[in-house]
Amino acid sequence: MTNTRTVELEGHIIDSGMMQQAFGIVMDLGGEFDVEQFDVGKQKDKTSYCRMSVSADDEKKLQEILHELHQIGANLTDPVDAHVVPSPADRVVPVGFYSTTNHPTDVRYNGQWLSVENIEMDCAIVVEPGGSTSNQNSTSSGDVVDPDAEDGPRAYTKVLNSVTEGDLIVTDEAGIRVKPPERPRDSSGPFGFMQGGVSSERPSESLIGEVADEIRETKEAGGNVLVVAGPALIHAGGGDALATLVREGYIDMISAGNGFATHDIERGLYGTSLGMDMETMEHPRKGHKHHIYTISEIIRAGGIAEAVEQGLIKEGVMYECVKNDVPYVLAGSIRDDGPLPDTITDTIEAQNAIREQAHQADMVLMLSTLLHSVAVGNCLPSSAKTVCVDINPATVTQLLDRGSSQAIGMVTDIGTFVPTLAEKVLGEADE
Amino acid sequence: MTNTRTVELEGHIIDSGMMQQAFGIVMDLGGEFDVEQFDVGKQKDKTSYCRMSVSADDEKKLQEILHELHQIGANLTDPVDAHVVPSPADRVVPVGFYSTTNHPTDVRYNGQWLSVENIEMDCAIVVEPGGSTSNQNSTSSGDVVDPDAEDGPRAYTKVLNSVTEGDLIVTDEAGIRVKPPERPRDSSGPFGFMQGGVSSERPSESLIGEVADEIRETKEAGGNVLVVAGPALIHAGGGDALATLVREGYIDMISAGNGFATHDIERGLYGTSLGMDMETMEHPRKGHKHHIYTISEIIRAGGIAEAVEQGLIKEGVMYECVKNDVPYVLAGSIRDDGPLPDTITDTIEAQNAIREQAHQADMVLMLSTLLHSVAVGNCLPSSAKTVCVDINPATVTQLLDRGSSQAIGMVTDIGTFVPTLAEKVLGEADE
Amino acid sequence: MTNTRTVELEGHIIDSGMMQQAFGIVMDLGGEFDVEQFDVGKQKDKTSYCRMSVSADDEKKLQEILHELHQIGANLTDPVDAHVVPSPADRVVPVGFYSTTNHPTDVRYNGQWLSVENIEMDCAIVVEPGGSTSNQNSTSSGDVVDPDAEDGPRAYTKVLNSVTEGDLIVTDEAGIRVKPPERPRDSSGPFGFMQGGVSSERPSESLIGEVADEIRETKEAGGNVLVVAGPALIHAGGGDALATLVREGYIDMISAGNGFATHDIERGLYGTSLGMDMETMEHPRKGHKHHIYTISEIIRAGGIAEAVEQGLIKEGVMYECVKNDVPYVLAGSIRDDGPLPDTITDTIEAQNAIREQAHQADMVLMLSTLLHSVAVGNCLPSSAKTVCVDINPATVTQLLDRGSSQAIGMVTDIGTFVPTLAEKVLGEADE
Amino acid sequence: MTNTRTVELEGHIIDSGMMQQAFGIVMDLGGEFDVEQFDVGKQKDKTSYCRMSVSADDEKKLQEILHELHQIGANLTDPVDAHVVPSPADRVVPVGFYSTTNHPTDVRYNGQWLSVENIEMDCAIVVEPGGSTSNQNSTSSGDVVDPDAEDGPRAYTKVLNSVTEGDLIVTDEAGIRVKPPERPRDSSGPFGFMQGGVSSERPSESLIGEVADEIRETKEAGGNVLVVAGPALIHAGGGDALATLVREGYIDMISAGNGFATHDIERGLYGTSLGMDMETMEHPRKGHKHHIYTISEIIRAGGIAEAVEQGLIKEGVMYECVKNDVPYVLAGSIRDDGPLPDTITDTIEAQNAIREQAHQADMVLMLSTLLHSVAVGNCLPSSAKTVCVDINPATVTQLLDRGSSQAIGMVTDIGTFVPTLAEKVLGEADE
Repeated sequence: MTNTRTVELEGHIIDSGMMQQAFGIVMDLGGEFDVEQFDVGKQKDKTSYCRMSVSADDEKKLQEILHELHQIGANLTDPVDAHVVPSPADRVVPVGFYSTTNHPTDVRYNGQWLSVENIEMDCAIVVEPGGSTSNQNSTSSGDVVDPDAEDGPRAYTKVLNSVTEGDLIVTDEAGIRVKPPERPRDSSGPFGFMQGGVSSERPSESLIGEVADEIRETKEAGGNVLVVAGPALIHAGGGDALATLVREGYIDMISAGNGFATHDIERGLYGTSLGMDMETMEHPRKGHKHHIYTISEIIRAGGIAEAVEQGLIKEGVMYECVKNDVPYVLAGSIRDDGPLPDTITDTIEAQNAIREQAHQADMVLMLSTLLHSVAVGNCLPSSAKTVCVDINPATVTQLLDRGSSQAIGMVTDIGTFVPTLAEKVLGEADE
Repeated sequence: MTNTRTVELEGHIIDSGMMQQAFGIVMDLGGEFDVEQFDVGKQKDKTSYCRMSVSADDEKKLQEILHELHQIGANLTDPVDAHVVPSPADRVVPVGFYSTTNHPTDVRYNGQWLSVENIEMDCAIVVEPGGSTSNQNSTSSGDVVDPDAEDGPRAYTKVLNSVTEGDLIVTDEAGIRVKPPERPRDSSGPFGFMQGGVSSERPSESLIGEVADEIRETKEAGGNVLVVAGPALIHAGGGDALATLVREGYIDMISAGNGFATHDIERGLYGTSLGMDMETMEHPRKGHKHHIYTISEIIRAGGIAEAVEQGLIKEGVMYECVKNDVPYVLAGSIRDDGPLPDTITDTIEAQNAIREQAHQADMVLMLSTLLHSVAVGNCLPSSAKTVCVDINPATVTQLLDRGSSQAIGMVTDIGTFVPTLAEKVLGEADE
Repeated sequence: MTNTRTVELEGHIIDSGMMQQAFGIVMDLGGEFDVEQFDVGKQKDKTSYCRMSVSADDEKKLQEILHELHQIGANLTDPVDAHVVPSPADRVVPVGFYSTTNHPTDVRYNGQWLSVENIEMDCAIVVEPGGSTSNQNSTSSGDVVDPDAEDGPRAYTKVLNSVTEGDLIVTDEAGIRVKPPERPRDSSGPFGFMQGGVSSERPSESLIGEVADEIRETKEAGGNVLVVAGPALIHAGGGDALATLVREGYIDMISAGNGFATHDIERGLYGTSLGMDMETMEHPRKGHKHHIYTISEIIRAGGIAEAVEQGLIKEGVMYECVKNDVPYVLAGSIRDDGPLPDTITDTIEAQNAIREQAHQADMVLMLSTLLHSVAVGNCLPSSAKTVCVDINPATVTQLLDRGSSQAIGMVTDIGTFVPTLAEKVLGEADE
Repeated sequence: MTNTRTVELEGHIIDSGMMQQAFGIVMDLGGEFDVEQFDVGKQKDKTSYCRMSVSADDEKKLQEILHELHQIGANLTDPVDAHVVPSPADRVVPVGFYSTTNHPTDVRYNGQWLSVENIEMDCAIVVEPGGSTSNQNSTSSGDVVDPDAEDGPRAYTKVLNSVTEGDLIVTDEAGIRVKPPERPRDSSGPFGFMQGGVSSERPSESLIGEVADEIRETKEAGGNVLVVAGPALIHAGGGDALATLVREGYIDMISAGNGFATHDIERGLYGTSLGMDMETMEHPRKGHKHHIYTISEIIRAGGIAEAVEQGLIKEGVMYECVKNDVPYVLAGSIRDDGPLPDTITDTIEAQNAIREQAHQADMVLMLSTLLHSVAVGNCLPSSAKTVCVDINPATVTQLLDRGSSQAIGMVTDIGTFVPTLAEKVLGEADE
C-alpha cells in the first residue's frame, strides 16, 4: 500500500462519533490506518485530536476513502491548495469535482482558506479569484478570508444546473476543510433532549413543549423560523393554530405547495377542505368542486395578496402571511390542480426560491409533507435546527436520513400537534 | 341446479349494503339467485324486504352460500328447527357445526325462537333443552323465548375449549336467524359521523370531541365503558389523563396486560417509565431495572390492591382503579417480565376474564395495543360501540377488519389523544 | 320540501353498491327520497332499474345532493339540455360549473347526447357547437353523437389552466349522464379476484401471477401498458427485471421522474445506485457523487437518447426504452438534482405529457412512487385497469382512494415484486 | 464530587462505538470523567484501552452512571468481589440487584471470576457457593472458573419469577465484567454487509442471498437455526417454502403460536387459510369455520404428532417438523382460538420453553411476528445472529431496539421472502 495520506480530526471526535465513523470508513472501504497521534480530551470540555495516516492499494480507492473521511470532517493535513478546474460546458462538472456536504466548509486557494458561501449538500464549489490586486499574501495560512471583503477571492456553492462553462470548480479532496457540528458535551442545551433521531416511546406533550421552547428561543435570539407545510395540516385541523402562530410573529417564512394554499383558502372561503365541513365534518363525500372554485376565484382576483386586499380571503394561514408580511413560496408539483397564480410551476425556479428561504432559516419545522421537506432539506446547512413531524414514521426517517445532524423527528398527529404547539408557544410567551 | 333454498332479507337492506353483499356472495360462490319478491322502502324510515331463492350445483356449494348469507343476516324462510348434534368429545365439535357471527342471533328449537346468550364470533351454539315440563307449545312460532324464564330451553355460545362431550351443538344453517346492525338512515346518531372505517384527512380535535360526546352519552345512558390499553399509552404520557377519567367515573373497566400496569406503577413509584423520567425526559437510556424493581415490590406487597392499601402506590391508573373500584383484567403474555401477582398467566383463564368484561361493555376504547384489542374484540357483540386508536394504521385496520360494524378507527398519537379526550370529556361535563 | 327532482339508476345497481350509495347520499346530505319505481334484476345477468324523486329544503341543498348522485351514476330523468355558460376569463370557470368524474360521461346539447372526450376527474366540460350546418335535429334523443363526425358539436374535458375566456362550460347537473363501471356479476374475469381494494393476508406469489396474467391479456388484446416507476425500484434491485419487460415488449410507456432515470443510468454507468454497488452492496455510504456525475455526463451527451447512441449508456430501463422506442415522460420535481435534459421541469407542461400517456393506457402499473402515481391517476379514466404496488400501505391506500374503481393495491417489496413479475410474465409467455 | 470510581474499557472501543457511548453516558447523567490512560489501537487489528475515573455529586448518581457504563462493557477496575445478598422472599429481588445485559458476563466470587451461565437480558444473577471443599484459593485472580467443574461455585441467571427466598443475588456493579460483542474491524465477515440496522434502499434479492449464505454457513459450522414464525407467513403463501427448508434440514427449531400451527394445518387439511383457497384465492370471505374445525380435529386426534401419525396431516411446516424431529414450541396467547393440544397456554411455562430454545440457537430468523419475536429476543444472548423480517418497519425497528447488536432487520414481503430464501439456500447448496 504505497498510496498514503495523512488526515487530522479535531474536536469532540469521540463522543460525537466522528472517530468511530473514521475508523469504520477506512475499514469498510478496504484501507488501512495508522494512528500517529491521539490526544484524548480528558474532561468533557476538552477536545480531542487525532492524526492518522490512511493507505490503500490504489490511488482510486484512497481517493474514495479520503472523500468519505471528508464528509465527516477528517481533513488532509497537507497545507496544499485546492485544485480548481474550469467547467468544460454549461451544467457539466469536471471529472473529480468535489461534491459538498451540508457542513461549514473552507477551501484553500492561493494559500488562503476561503469560507464557502451558501453551503448545502451535493453542490459544486466555484472559486472566484477576485480582483487584479492579488491578495494571496495578505493573510497567513490558516486564517479564513472574509467573504465580504471587496474584490478578494470567493468560494461558493453552485448546483449543477447553475454551473457555467469556465467556472473554476474545486476537484478532489485536497485543500478543503469540513467542520461537522459536534454534539454538545452537555445535554442541557436546546434540543439536547434528543440529539437527533426519531422520538419513540416518549411523552408527546413534553416533547412538543421542548419544540415550543426552541421556537421561542430562536425568536428571542433574532433568528428566523421557517415552516414547511403540507395539505394534511389543513385537513387535520391545524390551520387555525398555524395562522395564529403566523399572526403572533413566531413564523418568518412559509414553504409549501399549491395544495396547502388552496386548502387553506378553501377553508376560509367555504368552511370546507376538499369539500368537508371542518366544524361539523358533514358532507364528507369526495368532491373537488370547492377546490377548483377556490383556485378559479383566486385566479380571477389576480393572486392571493390581491384576494386578501379585495376582502375575498378573510382568514387562514395565507391571509395572515399577507397581512403580516410573512413571505411564502408555493412550489408547483405534477399533482397540482389549477394552479394558483402564486404557484411557481417551474421546478428549477421553485428550487431557487426555496434555496433562498432555506439559507435564511435558523430553525425549520417540517410539517406533514415529504416532497417539500426533502426539497427544503436539500438546501439546508447542517447548522439549521430542524424538526420533522409526520404520522408516518417512514417519512420522518427518510427526512432525517437526508437531514442535518441536529434534525429531530417526531411521529405524531399533525392535527393535535399544531394546536398543542401553538398553545405552548403562546402560553409560555405570556408568562 | 336442483339444490335450492329460499332466504329472506328484511330491514334497511339496501343502504346497509346487505343486499349488495347477498348478491355478491351468491355470485362469488358460483350460485344462482332468483328474486321472488322485492319491496323497496320508499322513504328513509321504511324498511325493505327481499325474498329470493338461491340454488347451486351441489348441496355442498349451496351450504357454503347459505352459510355466508347467514353471516350477513339473510335467513332461511323455512320454519324448521335448528339441527342439534351432541358433541362427540370434550373440545370437539360435530361435523357441520354452526359457527357464530357477532350479531344478535336466534335459534329455533321445538318450534320456539331462542335468543342466543352471550353472542360472540366463532363460537358454537349449545342448546339446553330445559326442564321436564315441555314448553314447546307454549309460545307461538316467531316469538322469542325469554332466556331468564325458569326451566325453559336456552341457547348460548361456547368457545371450542369449553365444549363438553354431549353438549347439544347447533349444526348447519337451518332454524337460525341473524340480525346484523343496520346503518341508521340518518347520520345524526351517535358515531354517525363516521359509520365505521378509519378516519383520514379529518380534523383530529373535532373527531376526539365526537368520541368524548359518545363517552358522556354512554355514561348518561347508564352504559359501561371499557378501556383496553397498552404500555405505549404510559410511555407517550397519557397516564395522568387516563387516571383522571377513571377517577371521575367515566371508565368502568380496564383490560390490559402486565406491561401496562407495571409501567403505570413504575411511573408512580419512581417517576420513570422503563427508566425514563416522564417530566424531564432525562436518563433516556434503556434500563429495565426500575421495571423489575416495580414488579418485585408489588410481589412483596402481595398485589396491586395491597400495594395501594399499604401506601406504596399513590397515583396512576391502577391506583385510581383500586380506589374507585374499577375492575381490571391483566392478561399475561409471553413477552412479560415478572409478572405481577395480579396478572393472569394462563391464556385460557385470561380469555374467560376478558370475555366477562366484553359482554358487559357498551362502549370500548382500544388504545395502543394490538394484542389486547384483538383479544377483547374477539368477544364483543356487534352492538358494542368500539373506537380503536393507534399511530400505526396497520393496527387500526387489522382491528377493524375483525371488529363489529360500528367500530371506528383513528390514526393518531395516543400521547396527545388521551389528554385531549380527557379535557373534552371533563370540560363538556362541566357545562 | 318543494325542491324536487327525479333521477334514474340503471344497471347492476344493487350489487355494484350504487343503490346503497344513492340512498346514503340523500340521507347524509339531509334530503328525502321517494322510490317511484324499482325493478330488481331477478337473476345475475339481469339489470335493475330505479326511479326515485329526491327532495330537499332548499335548492342549494338539492343541487348538492344531485351533484353527489351524479358522481355515482344517478342521472336526472329530465330530457333537458345541459346548461352552458361562457367562461368569464382565462382559467376562470363560471359559477356552478360541472366538475367531472373519471367515468364515461355524456352531455346533452341541442337535443343530442355528446360523449365527452378525454374524460378525467375534476375537469370542466367544454362544448364546441360545431359547424354552421346545424345538426341539432339530425339525431333522435338518446343517441350519442359520434365525436369524430366532421363539423358536429363536440364535448371534451379541460383542466382549469386550459380554460380560455369564452369557452362554453357546462354548469349544474342537468343534461349529463355518467356511467360508472359496474362490478361484473361474475368474479371469474380478470382482476375479479380482488374487485378493488388492498390485498392483505393473501399469497403474494399467486397475486403477482394474476397481475402477470393481466399484463399478458392486455398485450394480447392490443392494449397499452403504462408503468409509473419511482427511484426505489432501482435501489431495491428491480431495474434488470423492468428492463427485460421493456425489451420483451410488455411495457408500452413509462412515466417517471428525474430520480428514477438518473439512478437507472447511474447503475449502468457505474454499477452503483446513489453510490452503492448493486452487486456486492459494498460501499454503502451515502454519496451523491455518482448521481451528479451521471446527470453531468448525460447533459454533456445532450440527452438520454444521445447518450445511448454514443454508446455511453449500454443497459438499463432507459436504455431499453430508447432501443425499443418505448416513449417515456420524465416529470420534474422540486427535489430533483440536475436535472437531466430529458426532464420536463415545468409542472404544467409535465402534466400535459402525463395526460397524453394516461389517455392511451389500458393498464397501469404504479410502482413505488406516490408523487408520479397520483399525477398519472388524476388523468386516468375509470376504465383503465390499475395496480398500485408499494411497501408502504399508506401510499397504496392514498392511491386507491383517488383511483378508479378497478384499481387494486398490493403491499409488497418492489425488490422482489418486479423480478417475480418478470419471471411469471415471461415464463407464461413461453408456454 | 467526592464520589469517584475507576473504570476500564478494552477492545475495539472506538470503532464499536463503546467509547462514544461511555462519554455520552457520563455526560447525560450529569457526571464527570477524567481519562487517566488512553492507548489507541494503531492499526485495525489492534485493540484500544481506556482507563478513566468517573465522578458524580452523590453516590446514587454515581451508581446510575456505573450501571449504565456496565451495560456497554465498561468495568470497574477494582478487583473486589461482587456483593451477594440473599433474596428476601420468593420472586423478590434485594435492593440494588444487578440486572443483566445480554452480553457475556463474569462475576467475581471469592476472588474467582465465574462465567455467568445462560446469560440473557433483565435477569438477576444467582451465585451458588459450591461444595464444602472451598476452592477459593484454587485459581488465580482473573481466571474464569469452569462452570462444569464439579462442586465449584457457579453463577447463572434467573428471571424474577424463578427467584427463590434465600437465593444469593448479585447486587451493585462491583465485581462484574461485561463483554459486549465488538464490531469486527473487517466488513467481509458474515453479516458484515449490514453490521446491524434496518435495510433500506438496498437490493432485496441480494440481501436475501446474504441471509441464505449465513444459514448455510451456520449449518456447516454445526450451529442451530431457530425460526420464529407468525401466521402471516402462511397467509402470504410462505408455508411450502418453509416446509421445504425444514425437510431439507436447514431449520433446527421452530418457535410459533397456536395461530401459525393452525393455519399451516388448515392449509393441509382443507387447502385454505382462514377459509381462503391458497391456490385460486377464491372464497376469500371471512370464515373461521375451517380454522375451528382444524383445531377440533387435532384435539380429536390427540395432538399434532398423533394427527401426523394417523395420516390426518400430510404436508406443511408442522408435518415436516414431526417427520424430521424438528422440535417446536407453540406458545399460547389471549387471541388464540382453540387452542391446539400442543399449545402451551401458561405464559410462564411457555417462556421457559422458549428460553430453552433460545439458549441453543446460533442463528434466529424472526418472520412476521412481533409477539413471538420479542419473547424469543428477550431470552437471546447477544452472540446469536438474528434476522428480523416484516413488512411493517415499526415491527422491525421495535425488534432491533430490543435485540442484540448483531441483529439485522429487513422490511420486505414475507410472501416473496421465504420462497426466494428457500430457492437461494437450496440452489446454492446444490452447487
